[in-house]
Amino acid sequence: MASDARGHPAHADALGRRRANYVALSPVQFLERSALIWPGKVAVRHGRTAYTYAEFEQRCRRLASALARRGIGRGDTVAVMAPNIPALLEAHYAVPALGAVLNALNYRLDARTIAFCLAHGEAKALLADAEFAETIKAALAELDGKLLVVDLDDPEGPSATRLGSVSYPALLAEGDPGFAWPGPDDEWDALALLYTSGTTGDPKGVVYHHRGAYLNALGNALAFGLKPDSVYLWTLPMFHCSGWTYTWAVTAAGATHVCLRRVEPARIFPAIRDWRVTHMCGAPIVLNMLVHAPAEVRLRFEHPVEVATGGAAPPSAVIEAMEQMGFRVTHLYGLTESYGPATLCAAQEG
Amino acid sequence: MASDARGHPAHADALGRRRANYVALSPVQFLERSALIWPGKVAVRHGRTAYTYAEFEQRCRRLASALARRGIGRGDTVAVMAPNIPALLEAHYAVPALGAVLNALNYRLDARTIAFCLAHGEAKALLADAEFAETIKAALAELDGKLLVVDLDDPEGPSATRLGSVSYPALLAEGDPGFAWPGPDDEWDALALLYTSGTTGDPKGVVYHHRGAYLNALGNALAFGLKPDSVYLWTLPMFHCSGWTYTWAVTAAGATHVCLRRVEPARIFPAIRDWRVTHMCGAPIVLNMLVHAPAEVRLRFEHPVEVATGGAAPPSAVIEAMEQMGFRVTHLYGLTESYGPATLCAAQEG
Repeated sequence: MASDARGHPAHADALGRRRANYVALSPVQFLERSALIWPGKVAVRHGRTAYTYAEFEQRCRRLASALARRGIGRGDTVAVMAPNIPALLEAHYAVPALGAVLNALNYRLDARTIAFCLAHGEAKALLADAEFAETIKAALAELDGKLLVVDLDDPEGPSATRLGSVSYPALLAEGDPGFAWPGPDDEWDALALLYTSGTTGDPKGVVYHHRGAYLNALGNALAFGLKPDSVYLWTLPMFHCSGWTYTWAVTAAGATHVCLRRVEPARIFPAIRDWRVTHMCGAPIVLNMLVHAPAEVRLRFEHPVEVATGGAAPPSAVIEAMEQMGFRVTHLYGLTESYGPATLCAAQEG
Repeated sequence: MASDARGHPAHADALGRRRANYVALSPVQFLERSALIWPGKVAVRHGRTAYTYAEFEQRCRRLASALARRGIGRGDTVAVMAPNIPALLEAHYAVPALGAVLNALNYRLDARTIAFCLAHGEAKALLADAEFAETIKAALAELDGKLLVVDLDDPEGPSATRLGSVSYPALLAEGDPGFAWPGPDDEWDALALLYTSGTTGDPKGVVYHHRGAYLNALGNALAFGLKPDSVYLWTLPMFHCSGWTYTWAVTAAGATHVCLRRVEPARIFPAIRDWRVTHMCGAPIVLNMLVHAPAEVRLRFEHPVEVATGGAAPPSAVIEAMEQMGFRVTHLYGLTESYGPATLCAAQEG
């Protein structure tokens, strides 16, 4: 196969005609664009920390570079077991940017199931948050092969229990902030591997490709009304359908990600008020939680907050109570196989 | 080449692997989706006429069906010489939906140049507005071949001078409003042919493909903040880079198109006020025209109107005067070869 100047194979279109100037669609491009346009704008908030788009991109490039130096490359799987912290968001760019595949793990699964996912997905590396040290330790004991284990030392999380050979900050320090990542060879290449929870047997893996992630992220950004001044609160797990593609959609819009380790009203209300959150997603349970939050936890906010919720439609009483608090609820339906939301309840006039 | 159930060839991806379930990106899908979701919503306004999304789709299907019955098919060119009226907008869906190629002509060009475009583009059909009857008559006299000429009888335009063999309403009446159009074979197939004005010689043709039109329309919808409740006023000619892809982007957002035969303040201000226009585009001359409009023509409106303008940056005095009237100006730059806007001046904070 012929190669272009960057060493990528020359591309053929869907009818087999070769295209020298073909640019593969990839959601990694959203980060490159937003960092170019808004380098000084806040891209990611987490507790008392804030990263600008320039810093966010540099951290992602460091991570990609460090993983590449440790032998991770095209087609390799990198697993992450973490709540919604910056490291997991960064992995959504650094891993696909290497042509590697991100396997964000459901942290509610037990050690046996996690071990199955790591073995079945042939993970070459695992980034694990200290909160799940016990589960991860037990899962690793079940694995035959060796893999690179990275300790995610989150300043907002519990104090680190060392399981890995390197900490996340040390790994980033190994990397080059200006690393020229290769990107995917082709837009149909895999970028994420997501396992179901295995209700009816062993977990089943769903593979996302760059093209699908790009198109769904753009579609979701448009449908949810994300703009550069939007602020997105991470109440939906990123491991769930890549966070319904908002891991990429928020960046595509040049908006701000607000990370959240724990989905609980005592953290959600202050985040909404203090960071002027405009958009968030969550299962119906999240809406219930907010509606039934104790009075001393509920905070008033003056701006409208768009909330998208998936799965079964929330009861009208919950929608009404949410609206009284200042939320606007949109109902979605989708599945892991469709990159999360495949349909949404579009408002009708009148 | 193998075929799928609809008789389309089976598709191969960019690396030549065949994909049975490949869906070609095409902006025609935006109409299908919005008509499905919002059948009763106003899609197109023109003078005293309004079409819902269901009607807009039916008119497009009628046009595609009637053209197909008259022998227009895959790869054929259909030219249109018209101001921003519904027929030209409808052609942006009906023609690509046949796998045919839309050649929207610059109505400021003279007969000799129009004749060149029709001959060079091998137009099989021409839809022509009565306002340009003289130019069209002279252009047709220069052509050797025969082509189907359709008279666009616009109720908002001058009384019709018959040049063609059929009127637009009669052509639509021939068509099937439920016609199952084939769509493109491949997303890289041509959907539009646009000629430069030939400043340095004969006009040069630029060809757009379905993939590029789809992606640029989505990108422009997101960048310009189009939403289902947006109202877009057609102050930018649709023949100019397919109206910077807003011919499709407005439909993608499920917003409303407001057509406009003539770009003049005495028509623009009432449209903004009466239809609550939220978005419009135009060359810097349009901004100048609005700023220098006579006092009796200027109308007050209470809502902000987003205006995107291309080419040279407007002078700061013009931007200031526009902002005082209630417009928010975004500066774009692009070219016909890049589907119109390729860059925009993104607002920075602070």
